[in-house]
Amino acid sequence: VALNSLSDLLLHELKDLYSAERQLTQALPKMIKACKSAELAEALTVHLAETEGQIQRIERAFGLLDHTPRSQKCKGMEGLLEEGKSLLEEDADPDVLDAAIIGAAQRVEHYEIAAYGTAIAYARTLGLDDVAALLAESLDEERAADEKLSVLAEGGINALAHVGEAQD
Amino acid sequence: VALNSLSDLLLHELKDLYSAERQLTQALPKMIKACKSAELAEALTVHLAETEGQIQRIERAFGLLDHTPRSQKCKGMEGLLEEGKSLLEEDADPDVLDAAIIGAAQRVEHYEIAAYGTAIAYARTLGLDDVAALLAESLDEERAADEKLSVLAEGGINALAHVGEAQD
Repeated sequence: VALNSLSDLLLHELKDLYSAERQLTQALPKMIKACKSAELAEALTVHLAETEGQIQRIERAFGLLDHTPRSQKCKGMEGLLEEGKSLLEEDADPDVLDAAIIGAAQRVEHYEIAAYGTAIAYARTLGLDDVAALLAESLDEERAADEKLSVLAEGGINALAHVGEAQD
Repeated sequence: VALNSLSDLLLHELKDLYSAERQLTQALPKMIKACKSAELAEALTVHLAETEGQIQRIERAFGLLDHTPRSQKCKGMEGLLEEGKSLLEEDADPDVLDAAIIGAAQRVEHYEIAAYGTAIAYARTLGLDDVAALLAESLDEERAADEKLSVLAEGGINALAHVGEAQD
């Protein structure tokens, strides 16, 4: 891929995000299945539905740019999800695993926060306010999902992971 | 690695961060060399020095936990840096590449923001306020580095990448 212009770079970002979000929809069900906390499973299930909506927004952004949606394998997300998958394979206490799943999911959210933030900045510089507004909806969802995970971790799941330890 | 307790998980996070930061010190010099913007090169050079300090803080955190510093290959950072390396290999306009380097570096910053945030939350739950305070210093640096990159992107580098395009 030649990156001769900021428009090329925006398309590159969209292809990366398209791949990232699609990889995530494959990985989230396994993470949800591994949750002990029903609240955590619920939060990730809501985010899976949001992710499907975000994929549609990326497709609409491609459309606004007169391009067919295409992926370019996002190696960043691939690495993050491999890391998450390794966690699920560890010999782990279920409460501790919940805390670990939140850590893995927040890394994913932060990848997306960075990637959407970058793409939105490019779109604004290019005067593509419609594309920027569309991606900003997804960015808001990612930030809210990250915040929700922090609330779950600090509002009980980390403490539960620690209670088990204190009882050992 | 068995994850039987929140203490196990904190150690796991520290090993992951230790690997992530060390991988980053290997990768940053190549990114700095590829910058056209002197301001961007300077910001990344400052962050390379910060990263070296962050590695020392992680080593001190291991010490506070009576553990020898050890890495566990951080696949997340590995993926992010592979992605960044691919960018440097693209056939790219130098101004466009600067914008792309910022995007790659902000993904890295956000990985670290998520990872330090998680480790700090674990340390607090475990009552390890000294470890939490140490890692919070690094978290503040990561957030400031991310903010600085946004300022550079939106304060001129993205516009420069677009000016080249307008002239084509």
